[in-house]
Amino acid sequence: MIYITRRERFSSAHRLFRSDWSDEKNLDIFGPCSNPNWHGHNFELFVTVKGDVNPETGFVLNLKDLSPVIKEKVVNKLDHKNLNLEVDFMKDKIPSTEALVLGIWNQLAAPVKAMGASLHCVKVFETENNFVEYFGE
Amino acid sequence: MIYITRRERFSSAHRLFRSDWSDEKNLDIFGPCSNPNWHGHNFELFVTVKGDVNPETGFVLNLKDLSPVIKEKVVNKLDHKNLNLEVDFMKDKIPSTEALVLGIWNQLAAPVKAMGASLHCVKVFETENNFVEYFGE
Amino acid sequence: MIYITRRERFSSAHRLFRSDWSDEKNLDIFGPCSNPNWHGHNFELFVTVKGDVNPETGFVLNLKDLSPVIKEKVVNKLDHKNLNLEVDFMKDKIPSTEALVLGIWNQLAAPVKAMGASLHCVKVFETENNFVEYFGE
Amino acid sequence: MIYITRRERFSSAHRLFRSDWSDEKNLDIFGPCSNPNWHGHNFELFVTVKGDVNPETGFVLNLKDLSPVIKEKVVNKLDHKNLNLEVDFMKDKIPSTEALVLGIWNQLAAPVKAMGASLHCVKVFETENNFVEYFGE
Amino acid sequence: MIYITRRERFSSAHRLFRSDWSDEKNLDIFGPCSNPNWHGHNFELFVTVKGDVNPETGFVLNLKDLSPVIKEKVVNKLDHKNLNLEVDFMKDKIPSTEALVLGIWNQLAAPVKAMGASLHCVKVFETENNFVEYFGE
Amino acid sequence: MIYITRRERFSSAHRLFRSDWSDEKNLDIFGPCSNPNWHGHNFELFVTVKGDVNPETGFVLNLKDLSPVIKEKVVNKLDHKNLNLEVDFMKDKIPSTEALVLGIWNQLAAPVKAMGASLHCVKVFETENNFVEYFGE
Repeated sequence: MIYITRRERFSSAHRLFRSDWSDEKNLDIFGPCSNPNWHGHNFELFVTVKGDVNPETGFVLNLKDLSPVIKEKVVNKLDHKNLNLEVDFMKDKIPSTEALVLGIWNQLAAPVKAMGASLHCVKVFETENNFVEYFGE
Repeated sequence: MIYITRRERFSSAHRLFRSDWSDEKNLDIFGPCSNPNWHGHNFELFVTVKGDVNPETGFVLNLKDLSPVIKEKVVNKLDHKNLNLEVDFMKDKIPSTEALVLGIWNQLAAPVKAMGASLHCVKVFETENNFVEYFGE
Repeated sequence: MIYITRRERFSSAHRLFRSDWSDEKNLDIFGPCSNPNWHGHNFELFVTVKGDVNPETGFVLNLKDLSPVIKEKVVNKLDHKNLNLEVDFMKDKIPSTEALVLGIWNQLAAPVKAMGASLHCVKVFETENNFVEYFGE
Repeated sequence: MIYITRRERFSSAHRLFRSDWSDEKNLDIFGPCSNPNWHGHNFELFVTVKGDVNPETGFVLNLKDLSPVIKEKVVNKLDHKNLNLEVDFMKDKIPSTEALVLGIWNQLAAPVKAMGASLHCVKVFETENNFVEYFGE
Repeated sequence: MIYITRRERFSSAHRLFRSDWSDEKNLDIFGPCSNPNWHGHNFELFVTVKGDVNPETGFVLNLKDLSPVIKEKVVNKLDHKNLNLEVDFMKDKIPSTEALVLGIWNQLAAPVKAMGASLHCVKVFETENNFVEYFGE
Repeated sequence: MIYITRRERFSSAHRLFRSDWSDEKNLDIFGPCSNPNWHGHNFELFVTVKGDVNPETGFVLNLKDLSPVIKEKVVNKLDHKNLNLEVDFMKDKIPSTEALVLGIWNQLAAPVKAMGASLHCVKVFETENNFVEYFGE
């Protein structure tokens, strides 16, 4: 079993808040991340897939095939977008990094399986000091 | 003459557009950076000051003094904010990285001079692939 | 189960040696790390906690709560300190990076549990070329 | 159980291709990586070993002992070399990063065991955007 | 005057040698870089241009225009190529990093001028420990 | 004129203080950097030399020649050492990063000249957030 990871990047705006909470409670729980005028990040995404090496090619998966799938299903939907307003797979969710890794996992698990490998981990850096990982269970 | 640089970081939302242009023209010139729903970045700021070493302390400038000035005059005004809507020194400007380094320069040149040194360079990374510098002239 | 990681940094002095060994033996085993006049590092610490996402906030753990705990229990005790002489939780230990991750684990496991999550990993970089991890067992 | 990781680097040329395929098929599967005139990378290697802490030294393994083994068995054989033509443990293999981590694992598992620890992971970055890991099973 | 920098990357093979020298002399002067079977690097390229800010756009230069020029004139000619054999602007040169920055400068100076700005610096990292810069004079 | 830069690293202990000041004044001016029990850093050093390209080799300077000089004159004297107590060229100086770049400049200017090039810049990172540069005047 070999693990192969592809890094991608996207720059997005978001706001952490609940519409059923007052501004004061949102500020208390989410801090400056609840700024009503938005803020944003350069997110870094690491997608790890696992599988056996194909003896014909020496690859678990051809990155030439994986990378466009990540672009289409994830990066093009997130990059230069507002995570609260414009992303179909984040609709009605608080766009925390936790929710983002779960959403990205759901976008990629089936396509990776269809390529003959398994999605192992989705990891997202929000800043150089904070990152979140999900392993599917 | 010694040059000393302090790195700071801020995460902000912005949008590149002109209200006197159509959405089509904004999209043509500014690309996805003109998204009406905003996007954002983790900006990295490098402030370089220059001066002679004070023989009493071995410092050009005490970073314990410089850092709070950068925080107060720049970082606190930009971090978790919308560069188009909420930053006094960016008012009525297209918030390109170019405009940002000029605005930051104007915030810091006088306070650095008052501390007995000279502002040498303001450098801002918008992404890991793009950065802008201004040397005051 | 989601994993969330916070990076912190501290700069410390230390020396690897045993007082019951001769200087020659210390030098032979520990190399220049046994220099009696100390040396030091910019250590990088990655604390990973795991738990379920709280549906109310979208968070496993509010980093606004976790970060001050890491500061109080770990970083403030290590930063700009001598790891051999000044750190209560490293007393009577050879301050190898291995001992450091074990010590930090013991500082953080209970407070993280009290916050409703589990400590998953403590990882410390001593230099860009060496790091150590502990997973609690 | 403590995990300790050592980073090493090597710069090599390689070409992904099968001699039993036409140039067209090689180009179709391997893309520009099949350039007959070679290309190359600055590979980054992370070797992780695990074991118990030796109470006498505070170490799982003395990096002063591990590092020369990685140099002799791996880095000196790869650095400034052609991975297709000059590396004994890569002979007759398509030099994908997947094949490289498997080859490096086989070079290091026995020597690490002889030092009283276990090889846990071999991780190789081909570029800043792609890396591969192998955990021995 | 504002300075704006774009980072690009390319992975290439090369060999430092002179055909009019013996293998021994090549090895003596160029070390392992003269390996007849080639080696390679992940080169990082930083292109800095300078100019006044266009008040209409807030840009010195639209990176949407600059980036494809760097791709066409430089990166596409170097990436996954052999610097000794396949690059028109490096023909008959020893492909040192010094020669590379000079060659890249000559590829970009005129196109940047035609865009209304000036090329200020070409910087190339060969490894994380070595880089070369050229400022045009 | 081409500029070529070599990165080196060293890990040292130091303390910022003046023996003619009280502990209170030292703490007030130097903050936790005046800790009597020392602290330390992983310093990063960038040495930039400039010169014309030697048409015979394509080099400004052979890094195979420069690197051992930096090792002998600078890195071996600083690495795993105490900057206050053990470094001949820092004797009787407050070991600020400013003093360090000046000291390193004086160690390297003559040897670089003897190699037919000129020392252009000495740059030292104390942490990822602070660095100091000296250009010789």
